Amino acid sequence: MASQIETRIRRLTDTLLADYCKGRTIDATITLDHPNKETVIDIVKKLQRIIFPGYFRTQPYRIYTVENQVSTLLEDLIYNLIQQIEIVLRYIPEMRDATPEQTNTRAEEITFAFLEKLPAIRSYLEMDVDAAFDGDPAAYNKDEIIYSYPGLYAIFVSRIAHELHLLGVPLIPRIMTEYAHSRTGIDIHPGASLGRYFFIDHGTGIVIGETTVIGDNVKVYQGVTLGALSTRGGQSLKSKKRHPTICDNVTIYSGASILGGETIVGKDVVIGANAFITSSVPDGARVSIKTQELRFRYDNKSQTEAQPLEQDESWFYII
Amino acid sequence: MASQIETRIRRLTDTLLADYCKGRTIDATITLDHPNKETVIDIVKKLQRIIFPGYFRTQPYRIYTVENQVSTLLEDLIYNLIQQIEIVLRYIPEMRDATPEQTNTRAEEITFAFLEKLPAIRSYLEMDVDAAFDGDPAAYNKDEIIYSYPGLYAIFVSRIAHELHLLGVPLIPRIMTEYAHSRTGIDIHPGASLGRYFFIDHGTGIVIGETTVIGDNVKVYQGVTLGALSTRGGQSLKSKKRHPTICDNVTIYSGASILGGETIVGKDVVIGANAFITSSVPDGARVSIKTQELRFRYDNKSQTEAQPLEQDESWFYII
Amino acid sequence: MASQIETRIRRLTDTLLADYCKGRTIDATITLDHPNKETVIDIVKKLQRIIFPGYFRTQPYRIYTVENQVSTLLEDLIYNLIQQIEIVLRYIPEMRDATPEQTNTRAEEITFAFLEKLPAIRSYLEMDVDAAFDGDPAAYNKDEIIYSYPGLYAIFVSRIAHELHLLGVPLIPRIMTEYAHSRTGIDIHPGASLGRYFFIDHGTGIVIGETTVIGDNVKVYQGVTLGALSTRGGQSLKSKKRHPTICDNVTIYSGASILGGETIVGKDVVIGANAFITSSVPDGARVSIKTQELRFRYDNKSQTEAQPLEQDESWFYII
Repeated sequence: MASQIETRIRRLTDTLLADYCKGRTIDATITLDHPNKETVIDIVKKLQRIIFPGYFRTQPYRIYTVENQVSTLLEDLIYNLIQQIEIVLRYIPEMRDATPEQTNTRAEEITFAFLEKLPAIRSYLEMDVDAAFDGDPAAYNKDEIIYSYPGLYAIFVSRIAHELHLLGVPLIPRIMTEYAHSRTGIDIHPGASLGRYFFIDHGTGIVIGETTVIGDNVKVYQGVTLGALSTRGGQSLKSKKRHPTICDNVTIYSGASILGGETIVGKDVVIGANAFITSSVPDGARVSIKTQELRFRYDNKSQTEAQPLEQDESWFYII
Repeated sequence: MASQIETRIRRLTDTLLADYCKGRTIDATITLDHPNKETVIDIVKKLQRIIFPGYFRTQPYRIYTVENQVSTLLEDLIYNLIQQIEIVLRYIPEMRDATPEQTNTRAEEITFAFLEKLPAIRSYLEMDVDAAFDGDPAAYNKDEIIYSYPGLYAIFVSRIAHELHLLGVPLIPRIMTEYAHSRTGIDIHPGASLGRYFFIDHGTGIVIGETTVIGDNVKVYQGVTLGALSTRGGQSLKSKKRHPTICDNVTIYSGASILGGETIVGKDVVIGANAFITSSVPDGARVSIKTQELRFRYDNKSQTEAQPLEQDESWFYII
Repeated sequence: MASQIETRIRRLTDTLLADYCKGRTIDATITLDHPNKETVIDIVKKLQRIIFPGYFRTQPYRIYTVENQVSTLLEDLIYNLIQQIEIVLRYIPEMRDATPEQTNTRAEEITFAFLEKLPAIRSYLEMDVDAAFDGDPAAYNKDEIIYSYPGLYAIFVSRIAHELHLLGVPLIPRIMTEYAHSRTGIDIHPGASLGRYFFIDHGTGIVIGETTVIGDNVKVYQGVTLGALSTRGGQSLKSKKRHPTICDNVTIYSGASILGGETIVGKDVVIGANAFITSSVPDGARVSIKTQELRFRYDNKSQTEAQPLEQDESWFYII
């Protein structure tokens, strides 16, 4: 019996090895020239510990002094970041023929240029914590925001991914923001530019597209899309400004959609819940959808009894 | 080359250490007086094993008898919970000057008061499993619900976090519910009070605010918000009733929003999909939005060809 | 003091052990006849490495050649999958009285029948990668899609879970798809059938119900529900076709809901954002909701000042 299983395993292995030889994207087998997703996620975790030094720790670092902890974290981080950037630089057409030494030098330059931004990123994140505390009556203290708010987490990852994106690093920034998306339900493309005092509340379902530009002191609630009007052009639209510009002091309530690369939402604007905006909004406007007409029906039947739906109420239920 | 890197690392370390001295929230460096998020999440995992003894196991516990397993889990849990509660009690102003002994005594009292609620919490969760099975034709059996339903997981975490919240524990309950939010897309504040036989289906995008009160036998579908009408007052609104009260036997279909602290949804009410409710609803009502007017257009062009949008259909697409 | 704690722990243990004896679903204590969720998730991770051989690796496998890696992965996978399937077969009424040998034989048959589908599943996933690249201007290259797109991840898990579902495996397929739901916010029931070149963009909040059938070359955006019109019948509706059929070349924009087991969306249809569809749509139609009426208001007050809401704008805000 066991040997029969072994035969089947051998046959399956052969089938799969043959399947890997079809030359498709999915068939790449050399792992050394591919980034390692686990390592990239580990880099995000180490950056979180460096940026918020008193808040996130792991057992092994616990006994170190702050100074030792930071330099140990940095050494690890730098080693891994240089290595991962070296790997992804090959995705840039003009780097494909670079010598290993050239690639290493470029990766090192990028890594240090990125890490020198950390104090600036930290000052932005301090403002983001303030914005969340000031804007949310459910926040008991600022530590709660740092420990548990998904909005702050998504903003933290976006700010680091955006810097790497600006430095021309392929793949890694998106792996980082999609990791944050996975943990928070908040999908911010690393190309999006976020102003100071940015606050995201609840956050699940938010989509902020690649070419979005957001000013200072902006609040965004759950389910908001800052998106493109159409992507039917597919790859031909790459790098075009497809997503909106949001000016300072704007509040966008839950479920609203603001679409299009030429759409500019002016200063001090408030966009009401579920509004659908596809053209620019002047400074100071409060935009809202017409009050929804509700229908009320009463009957004697208990809602738990099965009963046929009336024609016109078939839209009533979504499961 | 290597020594050049070492110099840069040393310089970066110095820059960061200087940045940590600015006295901002983000700059706290002493980790011993901060809760440990990993430990809090581990407490949730151990509680899951204690509450559903036959369903979630880990390798090391596998060989123990149930009795040994429970007492080992409890010992670990109690040790960690007391320690974490001791740490967070300092966030309560009147506990700031307490002696370590007073803090320890209070943390121990809270821990045991909480654990004595476990049988009650278990009896609620059994009813939640029943509600999910009875309400969902896609449920093949009750074990499937315990193993895989995100709604049940979010309710499990909410029920334990709510008890800790009622016992006055800061931070930890929110870290717990945001962990569940991260895993399920369901955002229930630990202050929210949930009745018996509570069923959440699908769940992604649900937001249930801090002062929400929910009766027995309530069903809530994906994308529902039980929220505040406005939080513009920010911190000045803290602890005010800002979220609705939902009475017994209410069903709230997907995408509906029910808002405001004075909004009461009466018994046996059904709220239709996407309805937007900002005032109270009488017992037995079925509330729904007016049937949506749809527009149909046909043309000969293939949808994959790029073509200019007509003025009035620009709102058509959201990406 | 310590002995007092020991007494309390012993008392708590006794209370819980007594609570486990109430014979409820939640009280099951024998873990050997329950599936192990961690093992099922590990099976998903190993399948990902087998299906995308060059993209996902872990330290221990790194030094192996591809051939050794695949056969090692397969051996582990087969051992665990047979074991887990043996356990869940007892959920099938007609298998309850089977001998251990019969159960083992059946589990082995299912496991190999499933694994023989891997080349077919891989060819579908290659097409899914192509569909994502062709449809998304934000995709820089195909590797980015494999590493980071939540839509592709959800589709990958659905395709493997659907095969196990078709082979009659209880529980395990749902544990797999809910794991993907947890990571992506995309909730696809393992019963749903997905055509070729399927593309999900962003994805958070998507719900695709058990009896949904989807044709080739379909695109679905965030927040779309392919659902049932009502599930009030609960368990009496089990296995009935409750969810829609989507034909080839259909695009469904964000937030749209398509409901009902008799609803057929024809070929080449485009469903606009937020549309609510409860009856069939003919081939080639573009369906959209009426342009939303927006209201604009301007005032001199800063939005950060607290001010009373006007009666008719109370619906404005959702938090």
